Amino acid sequence: MKKIRIGILGLGTVGSGVVCLLNEQRELIQRRLGVEVVIGRIADRSAHRKSAEGVPEDNLNTDFDGLLDDPDIDIVAELIGGTEDARRHILRALKNGKPVVTANKAVLAIHGEEIFSSAEEAGCPLGFEASVAGGIPIVRNLREAFAADRIESVAGILNGTCNYILTEMTEKGAEFAATLKIAQELGYAEADPAFDIDGVDASHKIAILANLAYGTPVDLEAIPTEGIRGIDAIDISFARDLGFRVKLIAIARETEGRLDIRVHPAMLPEHHPLSQVGGVFNSVAVVGANAGPQAFIGQGAGSAATASAVVGDIVEIVRWLRDNGGQSRLPAAAFLPDSRRRLKILSPKEVRTPYYIRFSALDRPGVLSRISGVFGNFDIGLETIIQKGRAGRDDHVPLVIMTYEASEESMQNALGEILSLDVVSPEYALLRVESDGTRFA
Amino acid sequence: MKKIRIGILGLGTVGSGVVCLLNEQRELIQRRLGVEVVIGRIADRSAHRKSAEGVPEDNLNTDFDGLLDDPDIDIVAELIGGTEDARRHILRALKNGKPVVTANKAVLAIHGEEIFSSAEEAGCPLGFEASVAGGIPIVRNLREAFAADRIESVAGILNGTCNYILTEMTEKGAEFAATLKIAQELGYAEADPAFDIDGVDASHKIAILANLAYGTPVDLEAIPTEGIRGIDAIDISFARDLGFRVKLIAIARETEGRLDIRVHPAMLPEHHPLSQVGGVFNSVAVVGANAGPQAFIGQGAGSAATASAVVGDIVEIVRWLRDNGGQSRLPAAAFLPDSRRRLKILSPKEVRTPYYIRFSALDRPGVLSRISGVFGNFDIGLETIIQKGRAGRDDHVPLVIMTYEASEESMQNALGEILSLDVVSPEYALLRVESDGTRFA
Repeated sequence: MKKIRIGILGLGTVGSGVVCLLNEQRELIQRRLGVEVVIGRIADRSAHRKSAEGVPEDNLNTDFDGLLDDPDIDIVAELIGGTEDARRHILRALKNGKPVVTANKAVLAIHGEEIFSSAEEAGCPLGFEASVAGGIPIVRNLREAFAADRIESVAGILNGTCNYILTEMTEKGAEFAATLKIAQELGYAEADPAFDIDGVDASHKIAILANLAYGTPVDLEAIPTEGIRGIDAIDISFARDLGFRVKLIAIARETEGRLDIRVHPAMLPEHHPLSQVGGVFNSVAVVGANAGPQAFIGQGAGSAATASAVVGDIVEIVRWLRDNGGQSRLPAAAFLPDSRRRLKILSPKEVRTPYYIRFSALDRPGVLSRISGVFGNFDIGLETIIQKGRAGRDDHVPLVIMTYEASEESMQNALGEILSLDVVSPEYALLRVESDGTRFA
Repeated sequence: MKKIRIGILGLGTVGSGVVCLLNEQRELIQRRLGVEVVIGRIADRSAHRKSAEGVPEDNLNTDFDGLLDDPDIDIVAELIGGTEDARRHILRALKNGKPVVTANKAVLAIHGEEIFSSAEEAGCPLGFEASVAGGIPIVRNLREAFAADRIESVAGILNGTCNYILTEMTEKGAEFAATLKIAQELGYAEADPAFDIDGVDASHKIAILANLAYGTPVDLEAIPTEGIRGIDAIDISFARDLGFRVKLIAIARETEGRLDIRVHPAMLPEHHPLSQVGGVFNSVAVVGANAGPQAFIGQGAGSAATASAVVGDIVEIVRWLRDNGGQSRLPAAAFLPDSRRRLKILSPKEVRTPYYIRFSALDRPGVLSRISGVFGNFDIGLETIIQKGRAGRDDHVPLVIMTYEASEESMQNALGEILSLDVVSPEYALLRVESDGTRFA
């Protein structure tokens, strides 16, 4: 039986999961492929402190370049994370004609164009299912299942840390800071949580998905990105009363030849498929012009789930190697290189959504009409105004407003004017409402 | 640019959708493939009454064999439905070395083994994404994304007609017969609805999914199959009070080397992902040993959604034709032919699940203890007993019982004995409870 040797870079959480899966499912893989897939060698910076079942000690070392240049290694799995070293290793592997599988969203979001074109030049398959939404096969489905469909939008809950925190805040009525602390204690959030809670991780992932869905390079810096630090428990609670859930969403859609792509907390209708997904789970909702609305739900992280995506890619590449010497039949970025075209990203000002706003205003006659008057001046229609509770003449009460669709620019202008009113206190909350009509009932 | 010619058999709902999609997305497909995909010819029994955009009148006729033997046709899309003609056409296409795409679950469920081995012999790709769950890419994901994972279970809501009827019964409290009539008026149910509402359609689909997940031929007749005719509105309502939804589920799992596969109405916990899916939507939940629980939701039928799956398969096959002359890299049935092995199907008697039972019993002291005594004799543990309402000494009241896991055999024996008690009327309801622990929160 033909033997394919995998070289693994990085024996951390994901790397160990891959070793474990390849050992455990060896027979299943053979039944599907007729090929024996073995771990050829492993490079890890702390190799001396580690071991891997079925891998001789000599084949686990710190020699990354040795692995990348080893003619006996057929496929390289880059599982070290980070951007600079990962980029260098991936490019070297491709240059050596080795197909690459990676679980690394950062390196693809930042150096994707360089990596994609190197893969094309080398004619090597590049698998990166594990880079977005862990075990959910969204990369595969955007590259293949929806290859003949125009994607109207792709939106997801792509960061498990944020989803865990928001789910806990929703269920327990707890505030952000306390919930973050618990998440850190449970290992769901890093000691330095900025990468997750400020939306950076989600922006990397939606950049990759938008690239595949629309055939466009995506400039990370241009993605309007807002995290969840500013979310108050009270707004989650008011949102709930109104029939919504607060989620960190990442969304991309093509609109009149431009790309509306962004990451921010949003209120989603409670029947929206993304509203149903709690805790550390991930979900991606795709609307195809023909396929209609679809949702994919699963584990967005974790050793085993991520490993299953990595090994799924390996299996696919093994088929290529077996059948036609590894020549890739699929463009890495879903579109043929010369038919990709850069879509301009919509500036935040131009993005239009409905809004939820909570002011703190004096409970006096005439206040409501002054506030709604300002919205009217900026041509922003109001769907609902709710004053929460009653107060004395000089006390502030929460005033919750749901608007119809408005541009960020009009909203910021209206907001500036309203906050300068003497009856409104400077504290306020603003959330976009996302309601793409996706529902499954 | 290379040109690939599709031959379409059947210009009904799906066939017209495919013509429309291929015309509409021609440019997108070229940007992804670098190949022009055109409709070469169409065979339809009522060709004289039909037309297709972009297809010359002469190329739309009733000559099925002419199309199948036409050397200019590169791929055949079988969209006529039914089993005998479809089987003949598919085999003829494969014999002629043409890759085949089909949306036909019946022909695959009944003649799958013959068709799969013909495809292997011919070395031709066989696409059948559209045969199960319409636009949801579940065939692709079982064949590819989960190729390296052991599937613990695959379960789905695979029949939109049943799901529509049960959703309506749940929301409106209406009875089955009246709801079926509305479904027929709306076109969601056929004039002869047996194929859908008796679970036959769902059994065809789960047979295909089990085949892919476990590498086993599945004998349709051996699948315990029960439809939704017997469902009473009152049980849906009681189930709801208990925190469950009633759904027609199709499920397959390997258990100790045998296949537990069945189709029946079941009570699912309301947080179960399949519970969230209403109306004509379909959903498939897959639990992978490594990938963990996943759910896929989308449109299970309809011209455009089904066409998107058909054309997705066509695009994949075009890549094969472009790169290596159509030699299939993927076994049609996911496992290599000689590594498939037939799993014996668990007999209904042996299947173990928790149960919901509703009796109609006299409201007298001692009745509860007599009934629970019988369950005790058959070693069936009871989780909940609820008497619904009070009645006079000679009146019957509903008695709702939830059991722990029990075999169908014990349950039928207990049931027989209980129904022979003089305090219990012969009318009763029995529903299995499915609770595989899949939840995404």
